[in-house]
Amino acid sequence: MADLHLAVDRSRGGLAGQIAGELREAIRSGRLGRGARLPASRDLARDLGLSRGVVVEAYEQLVAEGFLDARVGVGTRVASGPVTRAEPGLAVRSDEPGANYYGHRPTSPDLSAFPRQAWLAAIRHVLATLPGDCLDYGDPGGVAELRAELAAYLRRVRAADTDTGEVVVVTGVAQGLSLVVRALVESGAGRAAADGDHGPLPAASDGAAPAAIGGESEGAVSEGAVSEGAVSEGAVSEGAVLLAVEEPTSPRQLPLLRRAGARLTGVPVDAEGIDVAALARTGARAVLLTPAHHYPTGVVLSPRRRAELIAWAADTGAVILEDDYDAEFRFDREPIGCLQGLAPDRVVLAGSVSKALAPGLRLGWLVAPPAVAAAVRRARGELDLGSPVIDQYALARFLSTGGYDRHLRRMRREYRRRRDALVGALAEHLPGVRAHGISAGLHLYAELPAGWDERRVAEAARACGLTVDPLPSALVIGFARFPEHRIAEAVRQLRVLTDRQDVRT
Amino acid sequence: MADLHLAVDRSRGGLAGQIAGELREAIRSGRLGRGARLPASRDLARDLGLSRGVVVEAYEQLVAEGFLDARVGVGTRVASGPVTRAEPGLAVRSDEPGANYYGHRPTSPDLSAFPRQAWLAAIRHVLATLPGDCLDYGDPGGVAELRAELAAYLRRVRAADTDTGEVVVVTGVAQGLSLVVRALVESGAGRAAADGDHGPLPAASDGAAPAAIGGESEGAVSEGAVSEGAVSEGAVSEGAVLLAVEEPTSPRQLPLLRRAGARLTGVPVDAEGIDVAALARTGARAVLLTPAHHYPTGVVLSPRRRAELIAWAADTGAVILEDDYDAEFRFDREPIGCLQGLAPDRVVLAGSVSKALAPGLRLGWLVAPPAVAAAVRRARGELDLGSPVIDQYALARFLSTGGYDRHLRRMRREYRRRRDALVGALAEHLPGVRAHGISAGLHLYAELPAGWDERRVAEAARACGLTVDPLPSALVIGFARFPEHRIAEAVRQLRVLTDRQDVRT
Repeated sequence: MADLHLAVDRSRGGLAGQIAGELREAIRSGRLGRGARLPASRDLARDLGLSRGVVVEAYEQLVAEGFLDARVGVGTRVASGPVTRAEPGLAVRSDEPGANYYGHRPTSPDLSAFPRQAWLAAIRHVLATLPGDCLDYGDPGGVAELRAELAAYLRRVRAADTDTGEVVVVTGVAQGLSLVVRALVESGAGRAAADGDHGPLPAASDGAAPAAIGGESEGAVSEGAVSEGAVSEGAVSEGAVLLAVEEPTSPRQLPLLRRAGARLTGVPVDAEGIDVAALARTGARAVLLTPAHHYPTGVVLSPRRRAELIAWAADTGAVILEDDYDAEFRFDREPIGCLQGLAPDRVVLAGSVSKALAPGLRLGWLVAPPAVAAAVRRARGELDLGSPVIDQYALARFLSTGGYDRHLRRMRREYRRRRDALVGALAEHLPGVRAHGISAGLHLYAELPAGWDERRVAEAARACGLTVDPLPSALVIGFARFPEHRIAEAVRQLRVLTDRQDVRT
Repeated sequence: MADLHLAVDRSRGGLAGQIAGELREAIRSGRLGRGARLPASRDLARDLGLSRGVVVEAYEQLVAEGFLDARVGVGTRVASGPVTRAEPGLAVRSDEPGANYYGHRPTSPDLSAFPRQAWLAAIRHVLATLPGDCLDYGDPGGVAELRAELAAYLRRVRAADTDTGEVVVVTGVAQGLSLVVRALVESGAGRAAADGDHGPLPAASDGAAPAAIGGESEGAVSEGAVSEGAVSEGAVSEGAVLLAVEEPTSPRQLPLLRRAGARLTGVPVDAEGIDVAALARTGARAVLLTPAHHYPTGVVLSPRRRAELIAWAADTGAVILEDDYDAEFRFDREPIGCLQGLAPDRVVLAGSVSKALAPGLRLGWLVAPPAVAAAVRRARGELDLGSPVIDQYALARFLSTGGYDRHLRRMRREYRRRRDALVGALAEHLPGVRAHGISAGLHLYAELPAGWDERRVAEAARACGLTVDPLPSALVIGFARFPEHRIAEAVRQLRVLTDRQDVRT
């Protein structure tokens, strides 16, 4: 095992970030080679005189970024490099704005296109017609009118099976996943098949409270509010669910999943989507994935893998959490139906209006097997008593009058033009950059030429007005928020900057 | 110890309800006398061959109803009878509509008076003026404009200290309390001073999952969704916070508090409010109370008790959760300032628009010490990413333009007339009934003549159109939802019914 020579300065704080930074440098410099094994978090923590949670957090950050691999029974190793990545490189930094939970992301829709008049008309209709009694506490699972409209919409557009699956209204995918994981923890349904070493992604244990990976420096949320050692081993690990997540994945969801009681284990994604054989080896009985358009690479889960995944779930009784985050936007053919429609007894579909309308509406849904739907509904009745009712009736109205479909058709055309502009401009001005995952969604995955430093390219891209997140040897580039001519111009400027500046490592 | 002779029929289901019903009858019949000690939940569970959680749930139900007392180190006894109650009697039944979390309650406001035009105008203003970027994910602690308006409002109307305390937007008192308890569990701040037997209100342990007290028969939330033994001892008890609640209290909040990680212990309320000496004896380091207008009795916390309470919190470092649920409605003089204004470093104030506007808006607030506020904001960032932004801006607009104050003034006048009508009609037609807690709020506490059966009176009252909840030897009667003449007529009819029917035990 390599001697890590990690230098940690306690007086600077942010210990997990320091360790992650040192390890990143060691990997980038080649001091830690591909496949090199890292010490167990417990051992490294003891060597450094730190709590184990700090090391776990650093490892988890690097797994999310793709620098490290974590496998059950194998431990933590330097990643050998998933298909879509050339080299491990610098990834999302905690001091970058895109690393926050909120605020603009490359996946954000064009909020200037929010249908204000149509939405106001829906609210006006609700306030003119809704009986006063409906302004009381609503059903915590959602008002019946909206659940019925969503069921019809998801049946039609996503091929969801809403006869077997039940629709529950939530505030978004975040709350939906959080409540489903809690329900799995409570029911014991998602426990791992076998106990053992599940790699470096256990729940926060003897160390620091769970911190927002990539978001820990977001000033206004005080670190000090939740003290060290806050989440005890017993409180989280006892009933924790081993949840497999795609690798790479969006680091934004990890703290949320952990807070809900999940221990996380990564499973690689290749050109066909998640590696189901590797998933089976984790022993996990729950998996979260983005089959329609993998984040960040944009890979679509292949038909073969879909079949394997569903067979695995049927054999093992596992639960599949399907994050359908941008499935409305498919440009070159009809949307691919959701997994939920194929295995409604094993899949929980989670979606929202965040990409179609606006994240600020906080309206989303689950389609879940009846027992899961009931548990989530009950949990909301014991958490926040459900979503605001006027907004729910307004969305039901917007769906029933066809306003939602009209808005989506318009935005699909517009986003397709913007995607074409970005892909075309990259081909023209930056031919060394390879665009992946362009058939759907609001972002593409741009693989950088060998030797380029994605952090420097990201800085240059932002200076040109693009919305990007750096990943190892790649950028996630959003194209939804700008008109075509601005996208083309921004890429042209980026070429000038990359020619002029040294963007190489 | 009395031999309980409990008959439980497994085939009927609802075991906790059956045990509670048998114990109620034993107490009502005098078979279990005042002060009689009950077996430990573990022992009774073993005798009956049931899981302990079932017995805990039954005991908890009866403590919430006022039949039983639970004291640290003393165990569970038949209540000796709080000041405002004559005799233990039949209380909220789980099959009554008022027992649900949602749906009309005696404390519900008049929703037909919801200011639809003014609210629509506020939404229209927001949609006409809000920059598109503000439709993205908002700050999970609430948008700055609303937090500033709420701070000014609470300073002015509730004498809150919003310089020391920080305002956080939540979806209501329910979510606010849930997140604060979770923050206390995580920080360890609310742990009990001494360990030991905290009476019959521990977190659900080896038995059934926490069920909605008084709401368990609400059909649509399936009991089966969360299996037996779902919440393990380790997962909840490890970091659980011992939280003192008033006795009697609203049973609706208990499942929510337990789910958030609280173990509950009851503290009696007398004519001056919560008994602070008894509170101190519990060893709790957190207490939830309704100082402005105790639910259900309407008692206002006396100045002496306020001072004692704050001294206790200062001495012990305890946290006071102040549920300010209907403080806007005070009829005979100005509202009494909140506790938070007296001890902003020890008190978390929780309020909402549910009484002033409508529960369905799901808009509320906390004013909390900065560390608690930061923990709650962070927890929302890892749970649901905050409240809908358009609604938040609309409430800010409604506050800043004076619309909220105008609506409150109008409703205060109207509710005062309705209260006067109810109090006058009771005095005229049912002079044996004594009305308490009439100076504030949207309900009164009606003490029934000795020997009356509150369940039968409640049935008769509902038949006359009143909104009531039965409590031991008393009714909670709401007066907000009906015009004066209907209230007077309903009480007149009730007199006829009570004369005609046998409402005696």
